[in-house]
Amino acid sequence: MAGTDRSRALPLGPSPAVILVNPQLGENIGAAARAMMNCGLSDLRLVAPRDPWPNERAEAMASGATAILENARLYPDLRAAMEDLDYVYATTARSRQMVKPVLTPRLAAAEMRARLAEGGRPGILFGGERAGLENDDLSLANAIVSVPLNPGFSSLNLGQAVLLVGYEWYQSGPEAGEAPPLELPLNGSRPANKKELNALFHRLETELEDGGFFPEPNLKPTVVRNLRNMFQRLAPTEQELRTFHGVISTLLGLNRRD
Amino acid sequence: MAGTDRSRALPLGPSPAVILVNPQLGENIGAAARAMMNCGLSDLRLVAPRDPWPNERAEAMASGATAILENARLYPDLRAAMEDLDYVYATTARSRQMVKPVLTPRLAAAEMRARLAEGGRPGILFGGERAGLENDDLSLANAIVSVPLNPGFSSLNLGQAVLLVGYEWYQSGPEAGEAPPLELPLNGSRPANKKELNALFHRLETELEDGGFFPEPNLKPTVVRNLRNMFQRLAPTEQELRTFHGVISTLLGLNRRD
Repeated sequence: MAGTDRSRALPLGPSPAVILVNPQLGENIGAAARAMMNCGLSDLRLVAPRDPWPNERAEAMASGATAILENARLYPDLRAAMEDLDYVYATTARSRQMVKPVLTPRLAAAEMRARLAEGGRPGILFGGERAGLENDDLSLANAIVSVPLNPGFSSLNLGQAVLLVGYEWYQSGPEAGEAPPLELPLNGSRPANKKELNALFHRLETELEDGGFFPEPNLKPTVVRNLRNMFQRLAPTEQELRTFHGVISTLLGLNRRD
Repeated sequence: MAGTDRSRALPLGPSPAVILVNPQLGENIGAAARAMMNCGLSDLRLVAPRDPWPNERAEAMASGATAILENARLYPDLRAAMEDLDYVYATTARSRQMVKPVLTPRLAAAEMRARLAEGGRPGILFGGERAGLENDDLSLANAIVSVPLNPGFSSLNLGQAVLLVGYEWYQSGPEAGEAPPLELPLNGSRPANKKELNALFHRLETELEDGGFFPEPNLKPTVVRNLRNMFQRLAPTEQELRTFHGVISTLLGLNRRD
């Protein structure tokens, strides 16, 4: 899905820290960085990655999100990585073994926005590829974030987990609000008004009458209503109506040059 | 993020077809299949993939979502792949060059649920890695789905695009509704009631008074309120309150054996 407009690079405001705990593959760190850039997240922290850092494969997978990788900070352990944070979410599958709140990414995003608005410093932990976060890691977090997915197949790789949490972060923000749920582009035209539509109905119905389209006069009102409903549902532009008039003219032979 | 419980494999009901148009890398087809399985989607269709099919790399990347790959259908062109469908969404970056509705994945998911409930057969197109969907592909679709992301960095790879659209599909369904936005696990205990909490307050405040914690009597009410508010916000379980009583006893030296 292409479509990056670098002239519209997002001014990155305060955002939650993303902490990858014992990530293994550079590729996955790169995918996480790319997902962060997609979602307006900028603060990447790496706790004891297995592969050497900096990492070429991470750069290749980041597909241009190199600023995130260059600014990533490296920590020897999880405690050090979150010293400046005040509320930390741990992403993991649902578990009832810990007495702490379990939130969906959507609710966690709204909560993180509220914390940031009050000057808070939230962060999100993601476990490594092999085993995820350990219980000792979870005990350092305030709350758990669990992504509702097919319970028969809920495992996500690192980049995908960061993407889904980041996606909800972006959706909860003001930039996403600028993209309404539904847009109806008109390609430079405007919606046809009812007068124009009625003119088309009149012309079409007259030509159909003349052409013998209504052999059973008592059925004509129903057929006419059905035709009109099709055009109402279509909600054509003025340009499209003119195109349709041209189609009618052509079918009537009015455009023939012979 | 581990956490697959195969005993809870989702009974896959009717779901939209996922059509990958001219995908290049087997890896990306595998990632798309994995994302589909995560999200309860099952109908994968491939239009003229570049790499040979079946594909080992796709299987490796699918991480167990092999059923999706085995049931995937191969088509020579896009028209053939969507003959049985009746409403098709094309995923692409926002474009105003086509007069058709542009929806967020969230709204498209709700719409697809409604279409399926009426016996409809919706599908979703995803373009190949190199160039996405072409305008001729778009002209075969009813509507456009565009993911709201950082406009300065909105490009997604194929697996990620399928994951985000699939994620919203799953969130819109009944299974995700079973996972409430917030859960408060109690690890086998129950929330402490106010009587138990008041007993703790009484004990703690008495011991603090005796220990000289309130040198300025006129400040005592404020300090007591602050302490009580901490415990109210904590909303401890009955088990946790007992643990805290033990902590108080130990600090008072009551557990000393000397």
